Amino acid sequence: MKYVYLFNEGNKDMRDILGGKGANLAEMTNIGLPVPKGFTITTEACNFYYKAQEKLTDSILSEIKKAIKILENETNKEFGKGDKPLLLSVRSGARASMPGMMDSVLNLGINDEVCESIAKNTNNRKFAYDSYRRFITMYSDVVKGLNRNYFEKYISLAKDKYKVNSDADIPEDAMVKMAKDFKKIYQKLTHEEFPQDPYVQLFNAICAVFKSWNNERAKYYRKLNNISDDWGTAVNVQEMVYGNSSDNSLTGVAFSRNPATGEKGLFGEYLDNAQGEDVVAGIRTPKSIDDLKKENKAIYDEFKDISEKLEKHYKDMQDMEFTVENNKLYILQTRNGKRTGKAALRIVLDLIREGIITYEEAIDRISEDDISSLLHENYEDNELKINKPIAKGLPASPGAGSGTIYFDSDSILKHSKNEDTILVRLETSPEDIVSMKHAKGILTIRGGMTSHAAVVARGMGTCCVSGCEEVILDEANRKLKFKDGTILKEGDKISLDGNTGLVYKGILKKTSASLSSDLRIFLKILEKYEGIKVRANADNAVDAKVAFGFGASGVGLCRTEHMFFNEKRIFSFRKMILASDKETRKKALLEILPYQKNDFKELFIAAQGKPVIIRYLDPPLHEFLPKEKEDIEILAKALNITNKDIQKRIDELKEFNPMMGHRGCRLLITFPEIIVMQTESLIGAAIEAKKSGTKINPEIMIPLISDFKEFVFIKNIVNQTANALMKKNNVVVSYKVGTMLETPRAALLSRDIANESDFFSFGTNDLTQMTYGFSRDDAGKFLNEYYNKNIFSYDPFVRFDNEGVGRLIEGAIKISKKVKPDLEIGICGEHGGNLESVEYFSKIGLDYVSCSPFRVPIARLASAKANIHKKNSK
Amino acid sequence: MKYVYLFNEGNKDMRDILGGKGANLAEMTNIGLPVPKGFTITTEACNFYYKAQEKLTDSILSEIKKAIKILENETNKEFGKGDKPLLLSVRSGARASMPGMMDSVLNLGINDEVCESIAKNTNNRKFAYDSYRRFITMYSDVVKGLNRNYFEKYISLAKDKYKVNSDADIPEDAMVKMAKDFKKIYQKLTHEEFPQDPYVQLFNAICAVFKSWNNERAKYYRKLNNISDDWGTAVNVQEMVYGNSSDNSLTGVAFSRNPATGEKGLFGEYLDNAQGEDVVAGIRTPKSIDDLKKENKAIYDEFKDISEKLEKHYKDMQDMEFTVENNKLYILQTRNGKRTGKAALRIVLDLIREGIITYEEAIDRISEDDISSLLHENYEDNELKINKPIAKGLPASPGAGSGTIYFDSDSILKHSKNEDTILVRLETSPEDIVSMKHAKGILTIRGGMTSHAAVVARGMGTCCVSGCEEVILDEANRKLKFKDGTILKEGDKISLDGNTGLVYKGILKKTSASLSSDLRIFLKILEKYEGIKVRANADNAVDAKVAFGFGASGVGLCRTEHMFFNEKRIFSFRKMILASDKETRKKALLEILPYQKNDFKELFIAAQGKPVIIRYLDPPLHEFLPKEKEDIEILAKALNITNKDIQKRIDELKEFNPMMGHRGCRLLITFPEIIVMQTESLIGAAIEAKKSGTKINPEIMIPLISDFKEFVFIKNIVNQTANALMKKNNVVVSYKVGTMLETPRAALLSRDIANESDFFSFGTNDLTQMTYGFSRDDAGKFLNEYYNKNIFSYDPFVRFDNEGVGRLIEGAIKISKKVKPDLEIGICGEHGGNLESVEYFSKIGLDYVSCSPFRVPIARLASAKANIHKKNSK
Repeated sequence: MKYVYLFNEGNKDMRDILGGKGANLAEMTNIGLPVPKGFTITTEACNFYYKAQEKLTDSILSEIKKAIKILENETNKEFGKGDKPLLLSVRSGARASMPGMMDSVLNLGINDEVCESIAKNTNNRKFAYDSYRRFITMYSDVVKGLNRNYFEKYISLAKDKYKVNSDADIPEDAMVKMAKDFKKIYQKLTHEEFPQDPYVQLFNAICAVFKSWNNERAKYYRKLNNISDDWGTAVNVQEMVYGNSSDNSLTGVAFSRNPATGEKGLFGEYLDNAQGEDVVAGIRTPKSIDDLKKENKAIYDEFKDISEKLEKHYKDMQDMEFTVENNKLYILQTRNGKRTGKAALRIVLDLIREGIITYEEAIDRISEDDISSLLHENYEDNELKINKPIAKGLPASPGAGSGTIYFDSDSILKHSKNEDTILVRLETSPEDIVSMKHAKGILTIRGGMTSHAAVVARGMGTCCVSGCEEVILDEANRKLKFKDGTILKEGDKISLDGNTGLVYKGILKKTSASLSSDLRIFLKILEKYEGIKVRANADNAVDAKVAFGFGASGVGLCRTEHMFFNEKRIFSFRKMILASDKETRKKALLEILPYQKNDFKELFIAAQGKPVIIRYLDPPLHEFLPKEKEDIEILAKALNITNKDIQKRIDELKEFNPMMGHRGCRLLITFPEIIVMQTESLIGAAIEAKKSGTKINPEIMIPLISDFKEFVFIKNIVNQTANALMKKNNVVVSYKVGTMLETPRAALLSRDIANESDFFSFGTNDLTQMTYGFSRDDAGKFLNEYYNKNIFSYDPFVRFDNEGVGRLIEGAIKISKKVKPDLEIGICGEHGGNLESVEYFSKIGLDYVSCSPFRVPIARLASAKANIHKKNSK
Repeated sequence: MKYVYLFNEGNKDMRDILGGKGANLAEMTNIGLPVPKGFTITTEACNFYYKAQEKLTDSILSEIKKAIKILENETNKEFGKGDKPLLLSVRSGARASMPGMMDSVLNLGINDEVCESIAKNTNNRKFAYDSYRRFITMYSDVVKGLNRNYFEKYISLAKDKYKVNSDADIPEDAMVKMAKDFKKIYQKLTHEEFPQDPYVQLFNAICAVFKSWNNERAKYYRKLNNISDDWGTAVNVQEMVYGNSSDNSLTGVAFSRNPATGEKGLFGEYLDNAQGEDVVAGIRTPKSIDDLKKENKAIYDEFKDISEKLEKHYKDMQDMEFTVENNKLYILQTRNGKRTGKAALRIVLDLIREGIITYEEAIDRISEDDISSLLHENYEDNELKINKPIAKGLPASPGAGSGTIYFDSDSILKHSKNEDTILVRLETSPEDIVSMKHAKGILTIRGGMTSHAAVVARGMGTCCVSGCEEVILDEANRKLKFKDGTILKEGDKISLDGNTGLVYKGILKKTSASLSSDLRIFLKILEKYEGIKVRANADNAVDAKVAFGFGASGVGLCRTEHMFFNEKRIFSFRKMILASDKETRKKALLEILPYQKNDFKELFIAAQGKPVIIRYLDPPLHEFLPKEKEDIEILAKALNITNKDIQKRIDELKEFNPMMGHRGCRLLITFPEIIVMQTESLIGAAIEAKKSGTKINPEIMIPLISDFKEFVFIKNIVNQTANALMKKNNVVVSYKVGTMLETPRAALLSRDIANESDFFSFGTNDLTQMTYGFSRDDAGKFLNEYYNKNIFSYDPFVRFDNEGVGRLIEGAIKISKKVKPDLEIGICGEHGGNLESVEYFSKIGLDYVSCSPFRVPIARLASAKANIHKKNSK
């Protein structure tokens, strides 16, 4: 096994063992760019280091020594001695970019002798000792774990003493003294002398970089970004070049295109006579790259050429570090640059136009977050920098929402005409739906990423931060108490960031969102590559139109219960629930019928013949009854019954585990008159739509089946009711009757159900809950511990569990298609809007996924990606 | 297809097509017993009748006519005419006995002419017209659906008029007039003349009997007894014999052994000069069969001979109907007699001794209910007859419990020293456990057959009626309101029947229960035939000893949380829950440790080396916190914190769906210190037991796994803790660490878990809940509708769902045994005590079932049955 590669031995495709930085340094070396010479110690060496109880084995040590010898030859310098001493940078570089997460040591190879030698040779004593003191500081920090404060305090005092603002302005003698004093500080803290042997310095630095792979922030970053702990980091050892060696030196960073807007052209900044860390530290204000054009056209042009060359070579916008040492340009690093969603889109569209990438490559490049950020309002970057969040919850629905706090739906409805409002609730319930539509943002104390608030907010495209458990809601006094002591009352202002889950006090400035022309173009491109179809979860014509605008091919889930939460209807619906006999119940349902029929008709007209799946009543009845005393009183008065009557019914309907209770088909079977009403509304609407010339394609979906007999019972009533209505109107409309598969039993016995059902739709939310045996609303209490203890690596309610729940689904598809090969099968859970999940659903042969309207573009992106991937892997 | 069989064409093995009664009549005919001649119309004819829109087809009609001709020849009588008219009984007879559920018509074939002819030939005009009026009544009722009241009122008036007590004493002329008047009544109500054509009578009667297969009570009975609706009934057409034709005539019913005690010898009663229906009607007091011995020794002896012959022939106790017509004995029916559990056991043991049946046949005969009734106190039969129930709930735990009502655990504890108490709760919670042990019975308003109350009560052998939703519990006023208006207050007396779910006012008299010597003998017999092993769910040494006494081969489930519900421990446990940091939590746990250790030690000593599976903490923490305001105050004072602190923690722990919440391994992973404490208790106890010379065989079981990583995390802590403790004590104990499979995901991915786990135990309660997606506590709200609408035929929490949940289990066994062929796999859900379920578990190759101690004998019976069945089907 080879553990050390010279730059000219590697190339850009060796990221896995050389890391990103190492692979790119090798690549640049090979295409002849001015890269300081060096070598890379592989990621495999890192893993081997950990296997060997955090030691470098002899074979690795000897490979390194050999590489140093070669480096000495190539550079004509000597490591740790001589007239021309070789100084090195030792930098981390993992397979995936983890900027700033791991450690580096620069200026390595200096000792007392070398320092003097540099001073002599460069005729710049201050530069030599500046480099030395920098090296001692970094080595102390990175290798020995000493607090940088010891050194920084010293510098600070020195600057005071000499009344200068910048380190660079400290006089030469003081700089010499500083380096010497730093050695003393080192000795005092470590009880050992600062190492003079350059190999000791080097090996310790390499070990320290390897060790930094497992520091806390690196581990956290990997978890956040789904980077495997097993990959390890490579170490790049490279000849130092000095942007701080003279006034003809400088150092800087630049992008080949604007990372915020995507606009073509160099974008970056640099510092004269400085080292890279000075740019990062922000002590001096850097100059714009445009200044370089004026000040040193030759270097600028050379850099611009290199930038374009690199862009073409890597076929993507580059983020480069460069240094000019005594008028000679070096490229220290290049990588694909991070960018905003807006820039990402602009860049791929430009690169297509420039003939640099294909459509498929463009689709491959665009991420879920890129699209997501374009669909919602966001706060200005600077606002997020200068404001400190006061709490963190779950980023339940993306976007930025700010406004005045209210703690109940009525207040929201009252105030949202005149001001932007934020609904704050312990948890939301279906009753809150109308106000959720009016609020600019929703903050809940309880509930996870797929809680009621989260699901509904995503559906509406409203910003939502859920499960903000660290905040204490004092409902009685209408106050929110934050961890940092902040108290916000009703009427105070707040800003929610649905992308990060962060909560800010006051109103933060926003950037505006709109369906940009770039996005339109991109969505158009996706059409050609569409794989699995994308439908939308839309409960009304308005949502459906949004979804169709984003390219949805139909409605995959219309939750009819949401239609009941309108002032007039909820009253009738409650009458229905409170009815003591079937006749009263029927009468109340008759009151709702015309509303529901009209809603369905609007939906059919919006769909223009696209399939529309309408799910019959699903949630338990108690969700529809009022909870507050006042509301109960109002209802009692209106219905001319006592509060006690209502309370009694509420008690009767109380459930231990509502998620596993009297809901879905169980409710429909207990109260078949609901089936009749919903069928009459739906088929009635279909008849009217058809009469008016609209193409229709309704699919009736029965929820929560666990046995085919449940389905048959309901289907028979649907068909009887539909037939009677069609006969009466002398119009025939075709419709399908299908079922959700959302209990494990339904999946296990889907063959029996397939015989009876026109279509299947996996309800992956419930299926995930029941397969794991935990509810999405309660899982928040332990999922964090599961991540911390490496038991789970992701939330199965956000990303589909291919392994477990997937086994159920794949089994169900197999046995069902055996009896009905052309059965339409889709999914309508929250996973329909998750990129990895859609790829999986595509792979196992589902016909469509259905997701919230605002996730449709993302699902379509996932569909195209999966399709391209499938095609290319054939 | 042959639809009509003469009695001499059939035999006892043709129950399926001849029905039980028909097959036995054929059998008796063939072995030469005095059976009136006749024929059977098959059950297939019944099904064909329904297929043909409730009509008898020509081919069936002609077969019947042919059979009548043969009957005329054999009896030398003529149907519907002549000097010797042939009268018939037309009786139902299904494959399974459905006593009294369907209809019969007797004395068929009488018309005006025949009646006169009988009068002449018997020289008994009164008898002739008595028979005629009986026939008209029955025909009107059964064939025409007329209310019998019309006729009974007439009889009642006639008895008044002639001042007689019995129909039989009505004078001859009046009887003649009565028959004629009955014809008029018939005509008035039906607007047609009473049919004179005997074939019209016959065909209509046959149709009526077929139709009675689907009357409401028959359908209900079939549902209760799991009899298929598809079987249909046969019809037996038989020459009438008359127990009411003279003073030398009589009719009666008798058992070949005492059906209450099982004692050998004829047991029955008869009426002189009467027809069978008179015996049933109970108008005259019948004589004991012993009187017959004195009054007509010859007939008695003849009957006794026949009884013994039949018993030997059928190898079982017989329930016979007989009639003596003018000193000639006829046997009208024989069937295996219904009997009490006590009698059933006595009879099979006697039959074994008499060499009539084998051990295997004996085991085959004894039912779940037989054993169950012997393990619990029951009310005297007569008490259940004379007392009217005031409510009906679910028969959650068998036995009879009566006493004084109390509505809270404290009152139970206070009063149960001085009197028998009944705990009445909306629902019970783990806090009630101690009082549940002291109460004589438990009544809950909510919850199903596997609710907390039901499971715990069965485990304790305490009578329980659960889910008595029709009763209104007014906790504030400590009152129960019953549907019939009865109101019971605290301190009133009540009787619960755990076998039927019925509730009675006052105290009903009981029969005593004990482990009878017959049961001991039978349990001993079971040993030889044991198939699948039977362990017990036992939470302490006392319960375990009961179970071992019943022959349990180990403890399959010890729920450690039950150990916390003792006054001293619950306090420490609550401290643990309320702890705000790990150290306080650990301290509180340390307080519990010695108790738990001692409990485990006692359990190990009781088990004497039998395997003992101990499950680590499973329920969510909120179950352990007080709910009532007072209790919260007491706890707050004791802990020196505020009520608010406790209330806050209660609020924090609140869950939407506790069944799918923070419990089981999720809790252990969040608070690993609980794993440590439980392991230290368990291994500590094992070490002490081993040191004292006791054989030990502990198995540690981790609940609610859904991913093998959960299991590995916990197993590692268990092993570390155990190793440290063993090292410290310098003793090695061997123990297993295994897991429950109770989430669908664990079953689906059991191969991964099998690699890590020493054993598996399917928790079929939770697995059933999650596979169906409904909770056992909430299913009560709709399961009744499911039965009514023929969607479910049984409660899947009582009888295991082989088809759906079974598919998961079978799949899991298959994939797990592939990686670990000798993996021990059992089940520990409530299904372990259900006969059909145990048979299934045996078939799919599980190693053991585990059930409540008081179900152990039943599970052992099931195990033996399954084993014999398996052996015989090879």
